[in-house]
Amino acid sequence: MTVETIESYVEGRWATGKGQAAKLANPTTEAEVATADTHGIDMGKALAFARETGGKALRALTFKDRAELLFKMSQVTHKAREELIETEVVNGGCTRSDAKFDVDGAIGTLAAYADLGKKLGDTRALADGEGLALGRSPRLWGQHVYSPKLGAAVFINAFNFPAWGFAEKAACALLAGMPVVSKPATATALTAYRMTKHLVEHAGLPAGAMSFIGGAPGDLLDHLDVQDVLAFTGSAATGHKLRTRSNVIERSIRLNVEADSLNAMVIGPDVEVGSEALSLFLREAAKDMTQKTGQKCTAVRRIFVPAALVDDVIAELGARLGAIKIGDPASNDTGMGPLATKAQLEEVKRGVALLEKDADRVFTSEGLAGASGYFHPIMLFRARDPKSAPHVHTHEVFGPVATIVPYSGDPEEAGALVGLGQGCLVSSIYSDDRAFIERATGAIAPWTGRVYIAGAKVAEHTMGPGTVLPLSVHGGPGRAGGGEELGGMRGVFHFMQRTALQGYRPIVEGIAGIKAAST
Amino acid sequence: MTVETIESYVEGRWATGKGQAAKLANPTTEAEVATADTHGIDMGKALAFARETGGKALRALTFKDRAELLFKMSQVTHKAREELIETEVVNGGCTRSDAKFDVDGAIGTLAAYADLGKKLGDTRALADGEGLALGRSPRLWGQHVYSPKLGAAVFINAFNFPAWGFAEKAACALLAGMPVVSKPATATALTAYRMTKHLVEHAGLPAGAMSFIGGAPGDLLDHLDVQDVLAFTGSAATGHKLRTRSNVIERSIRLNVEADSLNAMVIGPDVEVGSEALSLFLREAAKDMTQKTGQKCTAVRRIFVPAALVDDVIAELGARLGAIKIGDPASNDTGMGPLATKAQLEEVKRGVALLEKDADRVFTSEGLAGASGYFHPIMLFRARDPKSAPHVHTHEVFGPVATIVPYSGDPEEAGALVGLGQGCLVSSIYSDDRAFIERATGAIAPWTGRVYIAGAKVAEHTMGPGTVLPLSVHGGPGRAGGGEELGGMRGVFHFMQRTALQGYRPIVEGIAGIKAAST
Repeated sequence: MTVETIESYVEGRWATGKGQAAKLANPTTEAEVATADTHGIDMGKALAFARETGGKALRALTFKDRAELLFKMSQVTHKAREELIETEVVNGGCTRSDAKFDVDGAIGTLAAYADLGKKLGDTRALADGEGLALGRSPRLWGQHVYSPKLGAAVFINAFNFPAWGFAEKAACALLAGMPVVSKPATATALTAYRMTKHLVEHAGLPAGAMSFIGGAPGDLLDHLDVQDVLAFTGSAATGHKLRTRSNVIERSIRLNVEADSLNAMVIGPDVEVGSEALSLFLREAAKDMTQKTGQKCTAVRRIFVPAALVDDVIAELGARLGAIKIGDPASNDTGMGPLATKAQLEEVKRGVALLEKDADRVFTSEGLAGASGYFHPIMLFRARDPKSAPHVHTHEVFGPVATIVPYSGDPEEAGALVGLGQGCLVSSIYSDDRAFIERATGAIAPWTGRVYIAGAKVAEHTMGPGTVLPLSVHGGPGRAGGGEELGGMRGVFHFMQRTALQGYRPIVEGIAGIKAAST
Repeated sequence: MTVETIESYVEGRWATGKGQAAKLANPTTEAEVATADTHGIDMGKALAFARETGGKALRALTFKDRAELLFKMSQVTHKAREELIETEVVNGGCTRSDAKFDVDGAIGTLAAYADLGKKLGDTRALADGEGLALGRSPRLWGQHVYSPKLGAAVFINAFNFPAWGFAEKAACALLAGMPVVSKPATATALTAYRMTKHLVEHAGLPAGAMSFIGGAPGDLLDHLDVQDVLAFTGSAATGHKLRTRSNVIERSIRLNVEADSLNAMVIGPDVEVGSEALSLFLREAAKDMTQKTGQKCTAVRRIFVPAALVDDVIAELGARLGAIKIGDPASNDTGMGPLATKAQLEEVKRGVALLEKDADRVFTSEGLAGASGYFHPIMLFRARDPKSAPHVHTHEVFGPVATIVPYSGDPEEAGALVGLGQGCLVSSIYSDDRAFIERATGAIAPWTGRVYIAGAKVAEHTMGPGTVLPLSVHGGPGRAGGGEELGGMRGVFHFMQRTALQGYRPIVEGIAGIKAAST
């Protein structure tokens, strides 16, 4: 197999670096599959071109025009779907099902934002809320409006979703009217690179609307300025570094962070062995723990189970997890592939050692002794003391590992336990007891960006808590980074400046247009 | 005159410090008027009491209940109005008119949020936007909701608006259901202290809903945790310090910053000598520059004037400014008092020296030679080179000083010049040319939180660009801090967590309530 050279797309042309290239591996075989090098690429010029050429072109388009671009991007990605899936199997260690999850997520998100944008119509103005009289005179009118920010939208993306991770940020930024500079994680950048190639060649994007940094970012972030937006998905440690950058602080550069998250599943006290709710939980928990080999920011890390049900849950969930075949992700009968990189494998091993301090291991799947590749067994832990298990509540093990935490079945206790994670992206509730659900949701909501409520009534219709939907916000408070992406128009506003207009009513209404930004 | 001792209100009781007290002066006479000391006050316990006792009590109330509290706070402040105005004349160096501006701003903002809250009714749930089907089945429903954050809302306020600055933050936080810990600038804390005394005694606030730190904050900020919100108004330098705090970064503590701002006024090319628009501009510019002795975050610092009109504007504005009497703010015929502190006076002098590098001084009011007090003359500058005047565009002189910057009359040029300030709270446009207004607003909006459009049609109805209204957002991008306060419900959401609910439609709708949060 040839080793592919990943290029960058800057200033409207493809460029390769002239230094020491990073090597990208197939995590199943550890063979080299591609190289990435950005040395010598002028990141300042790349950003300036995006801002000046791309930004101007995008702002000249209406929302409907930009929506058409997104639709085209969705179509182009769909056309390249099979190639991208195969690439992700090779460069991500993903099963075909995992790779589809990523690629189809990208296609669907671009299409969803194309739909949203189309509804905004042939306008460039976006009103926020209703206008209103500011004083006693009906002449003096107030109206909030959104304008595209004048800089570039810079994305630092995680290794786990090279297609979807890009698409969810790009759909929002492009619809807002901001050009995109995308910097995927180098280790799995081959999928992102190939997707970008197709988009650049076939999606009809205006010059400068899309740039791609295929490898190290160099001094890219040093050039960020007041009108740029930085959107980051990845570790809390990297998020910390971005937040303390002097230009980010001094220029109040808008920064969206989506970082670590100790996501929770909560089983209600009404749930019994053999119930539809429990069967739904088992199906979704097993999938959520092992999809993408547990390398999902939304994957469950803590499972709160009423004490009386704990042994049954361990037995039944263990049986399901034990039936998942680990191996070559290219095989159709493989249920879980390797971790994406050697570094991730080391991190998961380190995390497991930390969990051992607070929890007993109650299930371990068969390993792949002697095989090459970054494989790790599926593991289930049981916390020894629910309230005093600091590693269980605060250390995210980014792999196929979760901990069962017994609790009393009290909804407020469940909320407090979820809160020990100090903020997460998603928590889910499995119950058919409406009073429990309402109280538990109230107790959990301040700690989480999304609450997924599962039970018998929706068992046939759900997609599991791990799936990020374009119309629901994705992000969470505290440890999860305090950011928000997606959520329909909510994610678009992140790339716009809100301004309060005050003045003579007909003039203000003329500027604001008549189109309100429905979320 | 007796020297008053400012106390703190923590853990539901009044407390005084046991260390070296800070001294508060009358900026007109330089006499000591009060002392403030917080040494020995346990800030950790103060915060914990607010969170646990105050937060719980406020969350148990409905929006309507909380609105009633705000209404009561407005009434209590109104009853103390005369005392607070007199206090601000003595401890702030404010004219009575300036003091009224602050105190009436507080009363009006509390009342406006009481009105808003009343409309939300007898509910604790707040829906964000419309619900919608998440997939093909109408059963699986998505709805965003807001919940009060579970921590305390901590305010670090500026010296210039001891009443209003507190009220605009407190109205939003309390309506959201968060307890308030208010830390005013020590130098002018006497007004804030007396207002707090009245509120604590007469507004019927639940225990823990309001705390007051009368002096240095000690280690207050070290105790901030993930569910707290920090709202800051003040210098960019202090904002910088808050942003780089390790707990703020590591716990993604929500932080709203409102900092320096080089606010602009733009005169359109249609404006002629003798026109109503010019007369409105002259009235508002003179007021804006000198109200509160120029110590307003919204005060104009840069005035963009079509080149042909510059000499006339300098002559006419200078004549108006020259007619303003500077002196003892307690006198009824005084138009402008001293700066609030000696440090502010030094800062203004330093700023003037910086402006001299880029601009010529074209007007200086008569000074008060030999008098005591922190007086500074009113000054008008004229930039030598509009585009290359770095101090004019980026150094905020927080006093009665502004710079006239000639420009071509082109609306996009005006936008670019406003943008050299790298983000501001408010910019205003004086013009009756609709095409100019629309283009200038479009060019300015991405750089500013509020655009105030003035012209003949609203000349009788405006309040000037410097007035912050509860229903329009107050904040700005970049140098202005990147934050947002007020703006109706927009400011309330800052103290709440947005959560996407996903589940069976009747259950989700039951949790979300039927009340949508209209902005």
